[in-house]
Amino acid sequence: MSEPEGLDAGLIDRFAEIVGDKHALRSPQDVAPHLVEPRGLFAGRTSLVLRPASTEQVSRILALATQTGTPVVPQGGNTGLVGGQMPNRGGGEIVVSLSRLDTIREIDLESNTATVEAGVILQTLQEAAEINDRLFPLSLASQGSCQIGGNLSANAGGIGALAYGVARDLCLGVEVVLPTGEVLDDLRKLKKDNTGYDLKDLFIGAEGTLGIITAAVVKLFPRPKGRELAWAGLASPKAALDFFGIAAGMAGGALTAFELMAATPLDFVLAHVPGVRPPLEAAHPWHVLLEVSSGRSADDARALMEEILAAAFEEGAVADAVIAQSQQQAEALRHLREAMSEAQKPEGGSIKHDIAVPVAAIPEFIARADAAVTKVVKGCRPVCFGHMGDGNLHYNVSQPVGMDKAAYLEHYRAMNDAVHSIVRELGGSFSAEHGIGRLKRDELIATQPAVATDLMRRVKKAFDPAGIMNPGKVI
Amino acid sequence: MSEPEGLDAGLIDRFAEIVGDKHALRSPQDVAPHLVEPRGLFAGRTSLVLRPASTEQVSRILALATQTGTPVVPQGGNTGLVGGQMPNRGGGEIVVSLSRLDTIREIDLESNTATVEAGVILQTLQEAAEINDRLFPLSLASQGSCQIGGNLSANAGGIGALAYGVARDLCLGVEVVLPTGEVLDDLRKLKKDNTGYDLKDLFIGAEGTLGIITAAVVKLFPRPKGRELAWAGLASPKAALDFFGIAAGMAGGALTAFELMAATPLDFVLAHVPGVRPPLEAAHPWHVLLEVSSGRSADDARALMEEILAAAFEEGAVADAVIAQSQQQAEALRHLREAMSEAQKPEGGSIKHDIAVPVAAIPEFIARADAAVTKVVKGCRPVCFGHMGDGNLHYNVSQPVGMDKAAYLEHYRAMNDAVHSIVRELGGSFSAEHGIGRLKRDELIATQPAVATDLMRRVKKAFDPAGIMNPGKVI
Repeated sequence: MSEPEGLDAGLIDRFAEIVGDKHALRSPQDVAPHLVEPRGLFAGRTSLVLRPASTEQVSRILALATQTGTPVVPQGGNTGLVGGQMPNRGGGEIVVSLSRLDTIREIDLESNTATVEAGVILQTLQEAAEINDRLFPLSLASQGSCQIGGNLSANAGGIGALAYGVARDLCLGVEVVLPTGEVLDDLRKLKKDNTGYDLKDLFIGAEGTLGIITAAVVKLFPRPKGRELAWAGLASPKAALDFFGIAAGMAGGALTAFELMAATPLDFVLAHVPGVRPPLEAAHPWHVLLEVSSGRSADDARALMEEILAAAFEEGAVADAVIAQSQQQAEALRHLREAMSEAQKPEGGSIKHDIAVPVAAIPEFIARADAAVTKVVKGCRPVCFGHMGDGNLHYNVSQPVGMDKAAYLEHYRAMNDAVHSIVRELGGSFSAEHGIGRLKRDELIATQPAVATDLMRRVKKAFDPAGIMNPGKVI
Repeated sequence: MSEPEGLDAGLIDRFAEIVGDKHALRSPQDVAPHLVEPRGLFAGRTSLVLRPASTEQVSRILALATQTGTPVVPQGGNTGLVGGQMPNRGGGEIVVSLSRLDTIREIDLESNTATVEAGVILQTLQEAAEINDRLFPLSLASQGSCQIGGNLSANAGGIGALAYGVARDLCLGVEVVLPTGEVLDDLRKLKKDNTGYDLKDLFIGAEGTLGIITAAVVKLFPRPKGRELAWAGLASPKAALDFFGIAAGMAGGALTAFELMAATPLDFVLAHVPGVRPPLEAAHPWHVLLEVSSGRSADDARALMEEILAAAFEEGAVADAVIAQSQQQAEALRHLREAMSEAQKPEGGSIKHDIAVPVAAIPEFIARADAAVTKVVKGCRPVCFGHMGDGNLHYNVSQPVGMDKAAYLEHYRAMNDAVHSIVRELGGSFSAEHGIGRLKRDELIATQPAVATDLMRRVKKAFDPAGIMNPGKVI
């Protein structure tokens, strides 16, 4: 990528006029928070961060951007893990922050939908649903700061995807500002609509490279009357696969979480996180956290969980298990799983993978990946946990004890290659949840079939012929 | 549309060579079955129907079609209701029938997926799933002859969509032959995959205008251990909406059907279908057929249904109800609903609508549409039934008793306009399930926002620059 020069002062004034000076950030300290991202992998520069307050202002910004050939980087809560929300180092790209489009326009209780603007924070929507005795099931570690527009642009996943689907599945309609400034208003609340090409799903997951999602209609669900959480110790990923088959067969859509975890990430949590304790008496090589929900009652959820565990014991899939006996105990179990990313940090460098394979291939993937990474760096420690029911694992690899962190991280690419080549052989994905952004763009182009890259480029060109939308991301 | 002239004999030979003479149909009697469609609304001509046996042959056909500028009409089971599978009257389009691509390539029980070729008949796949103790939930009146490729190209819906989703939701991956003959192999079994633009969902619902789907990976589900069916009589669509809220709240994803029916279509069935009898003792103005499923047991399904009906009686949503006491009785109730389309025929001309509105707007839609159609033709009889949980109604209108059928059908367009304008005001869709094809193309272009039409045309041009794929359909 050629990195364009900084922006002309007159042009900055023209953009600033659209949103008003107060919301056109120019000073280094004002723009700084928009130029750091969670993993610190990408640095960017910009002379201008615009904070529009309405779809109409977004439209005027993009119209001017097209007219002047100014590249635009849309930004939500700035929690993305692949650099999709970061401008490049040239300083010539403007950042458009959607934070002020933060209105929940409507909650329709009978249609079970919410119409929300892009800047609504995920947790705000979760809470609004809850107040209305509804559930918005998208649930992410970053939910306190990530925004719906970003969730849709990145097609976020998370734990709830097992029963309720990923962000794409939760979205019924979108409002999008196109690069020209035209507004596509497709804010419909329809579960069935066969009127032409599926434009909505092109914008979802496009990471802001085709237009800016300014609002969406999302699905709400009746709030479960009962939820039960259990933790199980198991012998192997194959046992977990059997256990998943049993649980999914009995619970169907009522199986609302099924998380697989190796012993290592649990050991890290027990070693580094204050106030936690082991979920089960004995140690086990593998663990599962599962949740069932019931629209009928807490008793029904409990009965379902007990039936599932009884069947799993009878089949020999599970070695030991505990059902949370209180809300507090459920929180404690959930915390063990949620703390796993953070608990890796004291163990030194970590090389991360966000992969998906067919559910049936999970045991083979883990066995082969464990062997492969050890060949790349002897003594490295696979830290495997994730959303087993979706075939989606966060297969991270911690450095060997005592190794120099920087020396370990020099193997980042080689480790990625080793893991991703197994993923490819198993018909999997090397970006299950987090997207492509800047981090995985070259690898996407290098490894996906040329015909797919060609089609994606044709889509990009058809929607953004001037190439102003989030250049250098995705494709 | 200009209608091209018939095909040159030398060109026909070149196409025939790809599939072999036996599978290149040329005689009027051989091609005839491919030129009639269920409603008899469209007639077409062709000098050539090709029946390829493999993806590779489809690829060679499209490569030659692009090279020679020959328009191609893909055809599955030929059950579509909007003419999408029919060539035009010019005779210059070749029909490519996918019927011989009829292999179920794989059933993966642990991943719960089936990999099937486009020509597999829906019922064949349903049965293959059942033999393997799985469920393929797509269920349509035409399931004995419609094909998976057509189901995906038309994004079919049906009764099961409420719990399991439409065809789009059931598809994880596709294999598509592009107009150039290139093959996009995206037959992945992944529930999460964020690697670039969502190409799959562009081909689904595109009605063969962007390429030919030759195979797909679809989701299977654990087969429920118990199913309960019930029939309820109600006072109004508003009561049905309340009933739906209760049932969906208690059952969640276990509510596997919720069909709303007015008294008129039931009366037609009772009058014209031999061997049926009324579902309830008294007459009711509205009816609901609902089904719940359980992965645990028949007893659990029964208990759930009883709890739902008890709650609905308590809330005053339901006036009377019966739970099927045997498989036979369940079949009899289901048959009442399924016979409704056919039972309209003896009542003379019918003007049909396949609409969706937000679920909450169903009562308002019915009230306004009933009033509006009566203004178009006094004495006409609204025949309303459909998938309430999806907001999707087949709002058909039978002619007044004694009126001349042809004279009634002259009001087709005016009736459509009256109904569809209400649909638009309610943020609905004038093609919920059946697609656009030839039937609704002009109306789509006339009524959707210009920006959507423009984007769809850009997609069409990007994927099919020569315009050989199913010309004159969709856009």
